[in-house]
Amino acid sequence: MPPFQTLNSNIVWQCPWYAVRQDQILLPNGDHAEYNVVVKSQAVWVLPVTAQGDIVLVRQYRHTVQDWCWEIPAGSVKPGQTLAEAAHEELREEIGGVTDRLTYRGQFYTANGICNEVGHYFLAENVILGEPAHEPVEVMSIHPTPIAEVYRLARSGQISDATSLLVLLLCEPHLQ
Amino acid sequence: MPPFQTLNSNIVWQCPWYAVRQDQILLPNGDHAEYNVVVKSQAVWVLPVTAQGDIVLVRQYRHTVQDWCWEIPAGSVKPGQTLAEAAHEELREEIGGVTDRLTYRGQFYTANGICNEVGHYFLAENVILGEPAHEPVEVMSIHPTPIAEVYRLARSGQISDATSLLVLLLCEPHLQ
Repeated sequence: MPPFQTLNSNIVWQCPWYAVRQDQILLPNGDHAEYNVVVKSQAVWVLPVTAQGDIVLVRQYRHTVQDWCWEIPAGSVKPGQTLAEAAHEELREEIGGVTDRLTYRGQFYTANGICNEVGHYFLAENVILGEPAHEPVEVMSIHPTPIAEVYRLARSGQISDATSLLVLLLCEPHLQ
Repeated sequence: MPPFQTLNSNIVWQCPWYAVRQDQILLPNGDHAEYNVVVKSQAVWVLPVTAQGDIVLVRQYRHTVQDWCWEIPAGSVKPGQTLAEAAHEELREEIGGVTDRLTYRGQFYTANGICNEVGHYFLAENVILGEPAHEPVEVMSIHPTPIAEVYRLARSGQISDATSLLVLLLCEPHLQ
């Protein structure tokens, strides 16, 4: 049995991308407490490697932190999509990429202190680049980068997006 | 100049741990859009290594994902605290740890798609364990674990908390 019992649960705020659920919970010591959970659908991260052996990074402006970040393609899984379909879609939309070698590599909780999001990550090899389809709010440029240079950036603190950096480090042993 | 201009900004929901700020922004193409930002204070993660050479993991129940997670001590920086003070405090509260060798190792954005949180990470060596001071909502146990075993868990997908896993991988080259 989980240590917390949920006594009551309400959505207290929502937008098209996520919601906040307020739970009244019973703690193991008998106290009642309020626990707020940012509720989000699952998400995918895709590490794209071209047939030439470059990793394709994107340089994206993030309004949340008012900064430009090196990242890999990522996005939420839409209702009815499989994880692999979502991965192919993000690849296509963010870098115009297609692949015949998409490998599921694992999952993690992206921010378990506040959010229920489960992140899944894929390695995409033999990626062929084409025309991306960015939304107006996706301000980014596309940068095929030699693998050694990507890991130099990663190890020197220049890849500031935690999840992209995590996926790069987790996939490192699987790259030639 | 940043590509997005903020035209208007309001806190639309808040709790003691974070708030949601709704920004009306002007996109580079001239469109207006709504961008919601989860606003949180900065946070610290601390990788504790004992004088005996064990990494101290905690096994914590996370209500957000209704799961038990292997983690390292972490928490928000309180107003008026330095990052190092916050790191010492989390060490003390979560594992009863004290250290005379706390090293700042870097920073990242924990969830830049939705949240402005900046995470800072420290390596704490020579850690001496004592009595922790858990809050009722912090349901966790303390596990000094040989370094090799920790990285076996990390590499085999058993450490599901993305940020703890990231800090472990980033600190690996700095551990004996």
